[in-house]
Amino acid sequence: MSGWLAIAGLGPGDAALVTPEVSAALAEATDVVGYIPYVARVAEREGLRLHASDNRVEVDRAQHALRMCAEGKRVVVVSSGDPGVFAMAAAVFEAVEDGPEEWRDLDIRVLPGITAMLAAAAKAGAPLGHDFCAINLSDNLKPWALIEKRLRLAVEADFAMAFYNPRSKSRPEGFTRALEVLRAAAGDARPVIFARAVSRADESLRVVPLTYATPEMADMQTVVLVGSSTTRIIDRDGAPFVYTPRKVVA
Amino acid sequence: MSGWLAIAGLGPGDAALVTPEVSAALAEATDVVGYIPYVARVAEREGLRLHASDNRVEVDRAQHALRMCAEGKRVVVVSSGDPGVFAMAAAVFEAVEDGPEEWRDLDIRVLPGITAMLAAAAKAGAPLGHDFCAINLSDNLKPWALIEKRLRLAVEADFAMAFYNPRSKSRPEGFTRALEVLRAAAGDARPVIFARAVSRADESLRVVPLTYATPEMADMQTVVLVGSSTTRIIDRDGAPFVYTPRKVVA
Repeated sequence: MSGWLAIAGLGPGDAALVTPEVSAALAEATDVVGYIPYVARVAEREGLRLHASDNRVEVDRAQHALRMCAEGKRVVVVSSGDPGVFAMAAAVFEAVEDGPEEWRDLDIRVLPGITAMLAAAAKAGAPLGHDFCAINLSDNLKPWALIEKRLRLAVEADFAMAFYNPRSKSRPEGFTRALEVLRAAAGDARPVIFARAVSRADESLRVVPLTYATPEMADMQTVVLVGSSTTRIIDRDGAPFVYTPRKVVA
Repeated sequence: MSGWLAIAGLGPGDAALVTPEVSAALAEATDVVGYIPYVARVAEREGLRLHASDNRVEVDRAQHALRMCAEGKRVVVVSSGDPGVFAMAAAVFEAVEDGPEEWRDLDIRVLPGITAMLAAAAKAGAPLGHDFCAINLSDNLKPWALIEKRLRLAVEADFAMAFYNPRSKSRPEGFTRALEVLRAAAGDARPVIFARAVSRADESLRVVPLTYATPEMADMQTVVLVGSSTTRIIDRDGAPFVYTPRKVVA
């Protein structure tokens, strides 16, 4: 029995952004577990079983992976981006804490990946080049009032911001409200970056001032970055560079 | 003249955490520019010139890289971690904005990497599994009062936190004060992770409650993670798992 469980980040989409560490784990795995579109990114091969499941069953998926690991299998749970940022790692540890005592002694490793906000920031320039925060805008797992509170405090702290899961079909109104809260707290000027499907064939990047940002510019494939009060835009032919200087003058 | 400039993240140290995209850029480069220990991580080969420079000359280094790019060279500026997180990308764009107009039209790309906080979080479990912020604790480029304000607001927002550059020989007192501010705002209980030299041969990871955290536990090789009010510790043989659940109950 030498099973292990690796919770691995596949990055934003491009195979050139998958770390060799993750590729090595996939090459040694007996079983891969994850949400359907992420498992679809893993090459099939003999001796590898792919277990794709729908979204919103994260804890079931985690328990399944832990059971297989306990049986001696070499299991990779795949997430897009980084598994520790609004992805499967927390779900697996929730399952460990609530599960049988012996799961605590399993060989569980988290393999980091390029998370969406960093891939998006790289495409735009360096908008997260100074202090910043990352907020999941989905209110599936927390009250909406807490999201609004965090948005207001993030503006007060003058963080640049990255928003994951900004908008879905089942909750179209949240992001509308988030933009209203931001405009009320931060004014109209600061740049907003809508980065969709970064590093994939259908990648798109759009930079607009907050006043022109509309809810329809985001969907679940989009990560949204909002500059701080010091974020700069460098105009040029083609897409501008957006960056937040390292220095803040007193 | 087909010069280009890639600002590339080498990840925290282990070659298995360097993306294939970054390796490909290094394989095509004529010149590599960066801080001495990061340039030392690039393999020498014929046709590649290494330009290592001391710390605190980021803008000089950026200008040098931009000049070489304008001359038609294929230049990689290397950072550890991710270049967009408290690293060289913002410095390059500062130099572009302040430099000659023609620099704006250079072929400049940012190649993301595994940033220290995500490598550290992966080693510990999933402490950044819910909303979080990243703060550079150095007051070289911003007033200390702003750092304290951000710490207080981050506690009020109940973010998990990642601190870069927590402590250096030239400013030993800042981190002492940061721990005081955190204890006053957040109480004594929440877990603090001191992650030093993650993924390197001398890696160390230490998890202590805030009340037992001391300034000497950090140096410039350390990234410090602080849990939110909901962060959990799973005790086990060996190092505990630390994770922040996805769910917050109203």
